[in-house]
Amino acid sequence: MRARNGQDKRKTYKTQGEAMMKQLLVHETTFARIETALKPYADRISPIVMDDEGDLKHPWGESEAGQIKGGKSEAVTSIAYGTQDAYFSPAVQTFFQTMFALPNLEFFQSSAAGIEHPMLQAIGQKASSYASSHAQSEAIAEWVLWAGLEHFQNGAARRAAQAAQDWKRMDFREISDTHWLIIGFGGIGRETGKRLKALGAQVTGVRRSGGSDDDAHTIITPDGLAAALPTADAVLLSVPHTPETDNMARGEFFAAMKPDSLFVNVGRGALVDEDALLAALDSGQVAHAALDVVRQEPLPMGNAIWTHPKITLTPHIAALTEQAKIRTDRLFLKNLGKFFAGEPLHNAVPKTSFGG
Amino acid sequence: MRARNGQDKRKTYKTQGEAMMKQLLVHETTFARIETALKPYADRISPIVMDDEGDLKHPWGESEAGQIKGGKSEAVTSIAYGTQDAYFSPAVQTFFQTMFALPNLEFFQSSAAGIEHPMLQAIGQKASSYASSHAQSEAIAEWVLWAGLEHFQNGAARRAAQAAQDWKRMDFREISDTHWLIIGFGGIGRETGKRLKALGAQVTGVRRSGGSDDDAHTIITPDGLAAALPTADAVLLSVPHTPETDNMARGEFFAAMKPDSLFVNVGRGALVDEDALLAALDSGQVAHAALDVVRQEPLPMGNAIWTHPKITLTPHIAALTEQAKIRTDRLFLKNLGKFFAGEPLHNAVPKTSFGG
Repeated sequence: MRARNGQDKRKTYKTQGEAMMKQLLVHETTFARIETALKPYADRISPIVMDDEGDLKHPWGESEAGQIKGGKSEAVTSIAYGTQDAYFSPAVQTFFQTMFALPNLEFFQSSAAGIEHPMLQAIGQKASSYASSHAQSEAIAEWVLWAGLEHFQNGAARRAAQAAQDWKRMDFREISDTHWLIIGFGGIGRETGKRLKALGAQVTGVRRSGGSDDDAHTIITPDGLAAALPTADAVLLSVPHTPETDNMARGEFFAAMKPDSLFVNVGRGALVDEDALLAALDSGQVAHAALDVVRQEPLPMGNAIWTHPKITLTPHIAALTEQAKIRTDRLFLKNLGKFFAGEPLHNAVPKTSFGG
Repeated sequence: MRARNGQDKRKTYKTQGEAMMKQLLVHETTFARIETALKPYADRISPIVMDDEGDLKHPWGESEAGQIKGGKSEAVTSIAYGTQDAYFSPAVQTFFQTMFALPNLEFFQSSAAGIEHPMLQAIGQKASSYASSHAQSEAIAEWVLWAGLEHFQNGAARRAAQAAQDWKRMDFREISDTHWLIIGFGGIGRETGKRLKALGAQVTGVRRSGGSDDDAHTIITPDGLAAALPTADAVLLSVPHTPETDNMARGEFFAAMKPDSLFVNVGRGALVDEDALLAALDSGQVAHAALDVVRQEPLPMGNAIWTHPKITLTPHIAALTEQAKIRTDRLFLKNLGKFFAGEPLHNAVPKTSFGG
């Protein structure tokens, strides 16, 4: 990071009617998508753009007020926008280090729904305002539909018959005939429930707050989970990883599932006892598992999850769509307007969510 | 077929208030599903049930009026219900021969939407009333979603990476970002359009009658097809096979499609010039083809369609679900009630549709 000292601009900021210039930290790829939309703020923000080598540039020029103050001047303030471009950049460490060095981080927008990562927890403590995003939910919901249709239509058997040039007529089960238990009925759960309902499936959502929801036929609270597990043809984990949800899908969980049902995890690998899952697949209790997340990522070569014939594994990519990035950008730009207008942010995460 | 002669029951039928007993020809597997629902008609119908060996049984007893008359008595009348159980039975020929021998076929319910098969054309000429079914449409619509999500999420590359134990993060395209051109906006087209719309995709339907439809964003007539082809990310054929649609997807059709788009056929194989399709796939003009139907079924071993890496082929099974059978049964039972009440049938096909 090429921080430098600049002279104290406090005087300037106090001049009535003159907007305070704010630094905006953002990844290069993200900036390319939103630069045009940021132009109306050109008199108020000075972008600092990081590339995949971790180099920082000032594409709109390095105005004095736009220089990185290294925390030395209280007068300079900043904004940061953390996206998948940054989180999956080889220079992700530099991105976070730069963010920690930003003076007076007033607003941080994350592209992630989750806030449990230690880096995000630390940023949550530093930032005056923190907003999360559920813009990945639609992408993940489509991934779940892919996995669900693939299972209930038995794509693997179809491909095997094609490979064998065998005109073998196999029937399949309509997803309209299936009952889904969606554990965690937040952004991802609701977007998935909405689509499954539209396809005619039965949807039960599980969330602590209970109540009812347009995107599910039934909402239950976690104390009803044990009774609901045997009723579902497919069980989806879309719950955050917390001390309460850690290892929640273990031996007794799989034993309670309806025999020959589908298990899907788009939450976090640490929700699942993977040995217990493998045992449940081997015994036939669980027919198939579709996993976008595993306990150790990247999954080491040789791990049985790679090769198990009843597991579909993708490498944490269920949200990796251009459309999810565009939706997150749209959210950030909306929140940027609200931030400057002094209005409450969409998806604001309360300070109390970031523990010491 | 074990037809026998019985005495003339004309006198009996003329007795006022006494219902005329009608023979009902149905496949054994279908009968097992609907027997209970047929019981209220036990005083008016006498089921003739065919098994896969072509043997005929009279499970409710062989009442005199219920005996097969071999067309010899004008007084005996009959009903037939043709389902996938019969059409895909090894004894399908016997089923149709029996049907042709039925005296006074007053009502024929088919589980198929199409009426172009020569056997169905002949039955359409024999039967006083003929009803088709769109109950397979929902199943086929789910098959199309499976094929579409599989393509836009690149399931093949995901499975290859898993097989190689390669934690390779690949992005995908949301179906919500795609535009579908659905050629033939009847039962199948509408059910597919409805689901695609619910997933956020853009839907253009093509049908001769034009107008507008809740299940599409835009409806065009066939004369607009050439202009629409280059705009679609996926093109679905769900049109019946007629002289007008024969070979409609040929060289210039594929050349007009948007490069790198998806081609899906759930109509009939004869809609497609298969050599032209293979050439379009080889040139990259068409990215992938998902086919549930081919020109020659079963497809002969060694045909290039079996092995082309850009073709997903299933053996005419897109409607093969238990749920489709149940929906068709429900339609037949509803139409049976209407038939006895003298009301117009659902999905009645006019006599003029069955040419000499």
